[in-house]
Amino acid sequence: MLEKIKSTLSKEQKELYMREALKEAKKAKDKAEIPIGAIVVLDGEIIGRGYNLREESQDATSHAEMTAIKNACKKKDSWRLENAQLFVTLEPCAMCSGAMILARVDEVYYGAGDPKGGTAGTFMNLLQDERFNHVAYVENGILEDECREILQNFFRKLRMNKKS
Amino acid sequence: MLEKIKSTLSKEQKELYMREALKEAKKAKDKAEIPIGAIVVLDGEIIGRGYNLREESQDATSHAEMTAIKNACKKKDSWRLENAQLFVTLEPCAMCSGAMILARVDEVYYGAGDPKGGTAGTFMNLLQDERFNHVAYVENGILEDECREILQNFFRKLRMNKKS
Repeated sequence: MLEKIKSTLSKEQKELYMREALKEAKKAKDKAEIPIGAIVVLDGEIIGRGYNLREESQDATSHAEMTAIKNACKKKDSWRLENAQLFVTLEPCAMCSGAMILARVDEVYYGAGDPKGGTAGTFMNLLQDERFNHVAYVENGILEDECREILQNFFRKLRMNKKS
Repeated sequence: MLEKIKSTLSKEQKELYMREALKEAKKAKDKAEIPIGAIVVLDGEIIGRGYNLREESQDATSHAEMTAIKNACKKKDSWRLENAQLFVTLEPCAMCSGAMILARVDEVYYGAGDPKGGTAGTFMNLLQDERFNHVAYVENGILEDECREILQNFFRKLRMNKKS
């Protein structure tokens, strides 16, 4: 299987979609959840949205990407998201990368890298491991500063609140 | 972080719980889904059950382990499944291994290995990668023949039906 080496989107499109993922991250922030957001795009239409909801749901699997993928599958009435693009503000973990492989998401874009558990380039690159039956195009650094800042501000406030 | 090297269960307990996972796999088979089943055990009680439901749900993430983990989180009202054991008839994929890491499942037992996508020893071993913030005890080969046969019979019938 050949690794996909080209994006189908322009820089403007990538930034526009990452802004939508950031909107989702802000919804998480408003609920005092770690602010991570994701969207799934197909043929220029946003078909899935999601944000991290671990604390409210008390469900370990309720990451932004999982909700966005589930919503996209529902919208398409298909577990196959071929030709779809996924945008997420933080580099995906193993669970979410695994879900993207299963759903056959074609292109994955993320903002900030995750030194603690990133599996799309940092620790490992599950999305481009040719031993799996699907390989995605992966691009990082889309609106990286904004995606990182929303997280840093969240954790800074958390530490301040703990101190006071 | 030290790798956990001991199981807390006896051979009889492991087989008893894998039979419960096999019961879940049979529920999938009865719905013409690929027969994979899983359960989550905590303090000797089964707190989550699940079976593969990809076709009926048309949701790429609806694997047996994910449903079992979600149900266990719901039952415990917590995303943390520390001290829990997970039994699954087939070696988990990257998504499901990732979910077990996130939920901090302590011990993972599976029946048959998955040469196509297994991430608990076959392709890689995500569950025992010390770069993640959680490492599980992993044991394979519990009721291996039964776990493999239910899958082999399913695919054999599928091929026969396609031919006829």
